Amino acid sequence: MEQLYFTVDILGTVAFAISGVLVAMEKRLDLFGVGIIALVTALGGGTLRDLLIGNLPVNWTTTLVYMYVILGSVMVAVVFQSRLKYLRTSLFLFDTIGIGLYTMVGIEKGMEAGLQPLICIALGTITASFGGVLRDILCNEIPVIFRKEIYATACILGGIGYFLLLKTPLPPAYAYLCGAGLVIGTRLLAVRYGIALPDIYRKRL
Amino acid sequence: MEQLYFTVDILGTVAFAISGVLVAMEKRLDLFGVGIIALVTALGGGTLRDLLIGNLPVNWTTTLVYMYVILGSVMVAVVFQSRLKYLRTSLFLFDTIGIGLYTMVGIEKGMEAGLQPLICIALGTITASFGGVLRDILCNEIPVIFRKEIYATACILGGIGYFLLLKTPLPPAYAYLCGAGLVIGTRLLAVRYGIALPDIYRKRL
Amino acid sequence: MEQLYFTVDILGTVAFAISGVLVAMEKRLDLFGVGIIALVTALGGGTLRDLLIGNLPVNWTTTLVYMYVILGSVMVAVVFQSRLKYLRTSLFLFDTIGIGLYTMVGIEKGMEAGLQPLICIALGTITASFGGVLRDILCNEIPVIFRKEIYATACILGGIGYFLLLKTPLPPAYAYLCGAGLVIGTRLLAVRYGIALPDIYRKRL
Repeated sequence: MEQLYFTVDILGTVAFAISGVLVAMEKRLDLFGVGIIALVTALGGGTLRDLLIGNLPVNWTTTLVYMYVILGSVMVAVVFQSRLKYLRTSLFLFDTIGIGLYTMVGIEKGMEAGLQPLICIALGTITASFGGVLRDILCNEIPVIFRKEIYATACILGGIGYFLLLKTPLPPAYAYLCGAGLVIGTRLLAVRYGIALPDIYRKRL
Repeated sequence: MEQLYFTVDILGTVAFAISGVLVAMEKRLDLFGVGIIALVTALGGGTLRDLLIGNLPVNWTTTLVYMYVILGSVMVAVVFQSRLKYLRTSLFLFDTIGIGLYTMVGIEKGMEAGLQPLICIALGTITASFGGVLRDILCNEIPVIFRKEIYATACILGGIGYFLLLKTPLPPAYAYLCGAGLVIGTRLLAVRYGIALPDIYRKRL
Repeated sequence: MEQLYFTVDILGTVAFAISGVLVAMEKRLDLFGVGIIALVTALGGGTLRDLLIGNLPVNWTTTLVYMYVILGSVMVAVVFQSRLKYLRTSLFLFDTIGIGLYTMVGIEKGMEAGLQPLICIALGTITASFGGVLRDILCNEIPVIFRKEIYATACILGGIGYFLLLKTPLPPAYAYLCGAGLVIGTRLLAVRYGIALPDIYRKRL
């Protein structure tokens, strides 16, 4: 179980790092810029969460494994850049798994800090999505998650599901897995069936 | 008194949240994007201030009322989007009152942390203006307060006035109100009479 | 020695502040905007570093000298704006010295917090380069250091050199100076001979 958790966490980190590399290379940044964008994409969400709840020094300054994994991913991604497009589906899958897991990690950290469910869900969503927001800001784009994808919405649904399940006799570990599954399932279904948030704009605004 | 303070604080939060909604909708963000921009606009200044002085976890993770007020404002603003333009004057007034109050809250937090007046004024200005800066960055604009409005300048003047009044026999509570009034008055007068900062650029630069 | 250190630190702060003024004036920001960009450029790197390692309240809220130096630099730079171009070489030199020193300050703070060398080097690089990143983001540009200059790379090389020298019998103070010198030397040589990071893009991508 521990090992499965760790494996998926690392896969999520790899996917986030590579998504950073892809955006940075589209902007033709240099090697350093690509590396930084990868780091920020993979570590940004957890960093903001730790800052907000005062969990300092932030996690990645004391656990080096994430940094090695990210820098390794950058090197592999740069070397095999022309083949990355064939991995698009796998990357999307890793990314989605990463989001599910990061959401639950964020929620758990909020609970450890004694915060209320609504805030925990916000922290989970921040953990899963803020890295991508920073990636897009650094590349001078309006963050993609504000524009078109069911992404944060999946995190919020998963978080709500988790807190509802915690009120049932289900063991917490199962609620945790179901929460992550709900995030992942929502996103996969939304992308598969082209579901988007309801359009809030009146015609002829 | 307490109740007046609370009422104005909430009105300021509503005004900041709605100003976020307006900018986000101009950029045609989706519902989630609009909500986030509203949250960031209303909470961003206080968050940065709390981070800088180490007041962690930051305020809004432990007091839920702000979050409810903001999310409620977003819903109302989205539903009544076509009528928001008629409220432009009221919104400007709330916003200005919010700035005055947020400035004083920031100054007070700095004083509680034992910091010097100059730094307290900086923290007050950050509290009042950084939410708008973040809003503009997330929407990929150069922050409006760097370009054309007497805004932060009003915060700074109010802060200076407050510290000067503290040296007089006036009770601190009055100095506090005068400080907030000075921020509000400066901004209203500047907008009413089109006063701007002096132009620093030489012709034919 | 102490005095030399202090002098160079102040010169670096001046150079960072003026580089902020130059970018902000190119964007035609108003006086307040120019001042904020100068403050952010000079203080941003140290602020992020202090946040990440939990060194709160951050340094500049308790030591006022930096703020005075920066505000003074802004005034001088605005008044003598038409002559700044003649100082381009001196400014570049100050800036480079500032980077060397800021890198070492960041590394030292990381070591004081008991962090590993890799993280200390990251913190040194952040201290030296994040102010410029924030400056460019606030001015709505892709940060220049992600695109074309040997800058952060110089910080990283200097940091590596410093940790290698610490393993020799050389006194730590000399290792410190050599580290700073390595940063400065790398950048000067790179700019003088037009050395850039290797191009990572395949032709006909």
